[in-house]
Amino acid sequence: MSKKPISSDSCLNMTLDSVRESLIGQEDTIIFCLIERAKYPINSPLYDESVAGVPGSLVEYIVKETEALQAKVGRYESPEENPFFPENLPPLIVPPHNIPQVLHPSGISININKTIWDTYFNQLLPLFVREGNDGNYVPTATCDLHCLQALSRRIHYGKFVAEIKFMDAPEDYSPAIRAQDRATLMSLLTFEKVEEMVKQRVEKKTMVFGQEVSLNDPDDKKGKYKVDPSMVSRLYGEWVMPLTKLVQVEYLLRRLD
Amino acid sequence: MSKKPISSDSCLNMTLDSVRESLIGQEDTIIFCLIERAKYPINSPLYDESVAGVPGSLVEYIVKETEALQAKVGRYESPEENPFFPENLPPLIVPPHNIPQVLHPSGISININKTIWDTYFNQLLPLFVREGNDGNYVPTATCDLHCLQALSRRIHYGKFVAEIKFMDAPEDYSPAIRAQDRATLMSLLTFEKVEEMVKQRVEKKTMVFGQEVSLNDPDDKKGKYKVDPSMVSRLYGEWVMPLTKLVQVEYLLRRLD
Repeated sequence: MSKKPISSDSCLNMTLDSVRESLIGQEDTIIFCLIERAKYPINSPLYDESVAGVPGSLVEYIVKETEALQAKVGRYESPEENPFFPENLPPLIVPPHNIPQVLHPSGISININKTIWDTYFNQLLPLFVREGNDGNYVPTATCDLHCLQALSRRIHYGKFVAEIKFMDAPEDYSPAIRAQDRATLMSLLTFEKVEEMVKQRVEKKTMVFGQEVSLNDPDDKKGKYKVDPSMVSRLYGEWVMPLTKLVQVEYLLRRLD
Repeated sequence: MSKKPISSDSCLNMTLDSVRESLIGQEDTIIFCLIERAKYPINSPLYDESVAGVPGSLVEYIVKETEALQAKVGRYESPEENPFFPENLPPLIVPPHNIPQVLHPSGISININKTIWDTYFNQLLPLFVREGNDGNYVPTATCDLHCLQALSRRIHYGKFVAEIKFMDAPEDYSPAIRAQDRATLMSLLTFEKVEEMVKQRVEKKTMVFGQEVSLNDPDDKKGKYKVDPSMVSRLYGEWVMPLTKLVQVEYLLRRLD
């Protein structure tokens, strides 16, 4: 049988509405990933660089090698995906997919995954995962990988947000871009009411998705959540939205290159 | 720095209650995985064996290679995990973890993943995934992998269910085991009321986890779910519970070896 390249019938009609819809859908994914990770205790040997058998920590090995495998079959052809270990990626083994490019070429390579990695492991994880070690290292590391990929996709989606906003009103952004004025760009991209609404929505979603559902709804389970809803609100307010705006600013600074 | 082996402080105190609690928690995982997969259309080139670049289909390649990577760091040391491609697994690169064995040695290797694979791709997937091709092949295949792993873990958990039930009342099962009488074992393991309750519970969970959550709750979103709740009830009634009982029967048939 002769082999043929893969191709999709998608076409990129990105609008501010479709970008918003994607961001809202990604909230569900992030919350599902956090809930799944919270099933396991911290399992700290995963993060210990002195564990035998692999270079670095076990979680680093698993993320790096999974990215390498997924790179071979085209994950990082998509401008929505950004690797944590870009220096480690092998070439494609499938024919290239030729995804239509909507981003400005100078902005495509923006990658703040180093910051996301450090924030996730050092600040976020201790907030929602209990102490302990149940030995489920590979499933736990897989949950970490999913959390990292979901957060990275959400935060780097700022490139698309910035592109759409710029195309909508280039005259609003161009003076600050020409002046390379980060502070003005950041204030142009900040809408406190919208951010407050997003924080409330992810808190509500965590209450819905993180509840214990049973047929008889006993009272003692009411108000108990698998992940603290206010923690997810804080995650968005302190990290996800500020980092998304950082990506937007970085993108806009290069938009007229 | 000298490298040390990893170890956990878990001890295996498995009871019928703890097994039930795990099965109930795994329902949430399965439903989250189905909802995530339903975000993407069918993306049929993933399942096409004539696509260039990899042996077999792209999804088969991704599952096989991910299992190989996870095997090296110990996923399949756990008796809860069963690979889809056991013939493909490389040796451990980390020190063995020495998980305490609660299963009877003759039953550990029972693996019905071939049936789970065929059921998932041929019967289940067309029931909850829309037509179309959006080009998101690797994220889609990753969702398939998560669905397969979650279903496989749930179904093979039947080994633990069977072991606990046997230890609880060996005299109930031993005559049928000695007679290698599948039909009697199956009827000993069948509790229609419990199965009906499980079906209702997963339907309710899908309504909760699969709803659109927004701050203002518009009426037009009411009763719309990302995955059809009755489909998940059917998935459990026609496949998950019968296949779990099949694993239990297979396990018990070897329990006195």
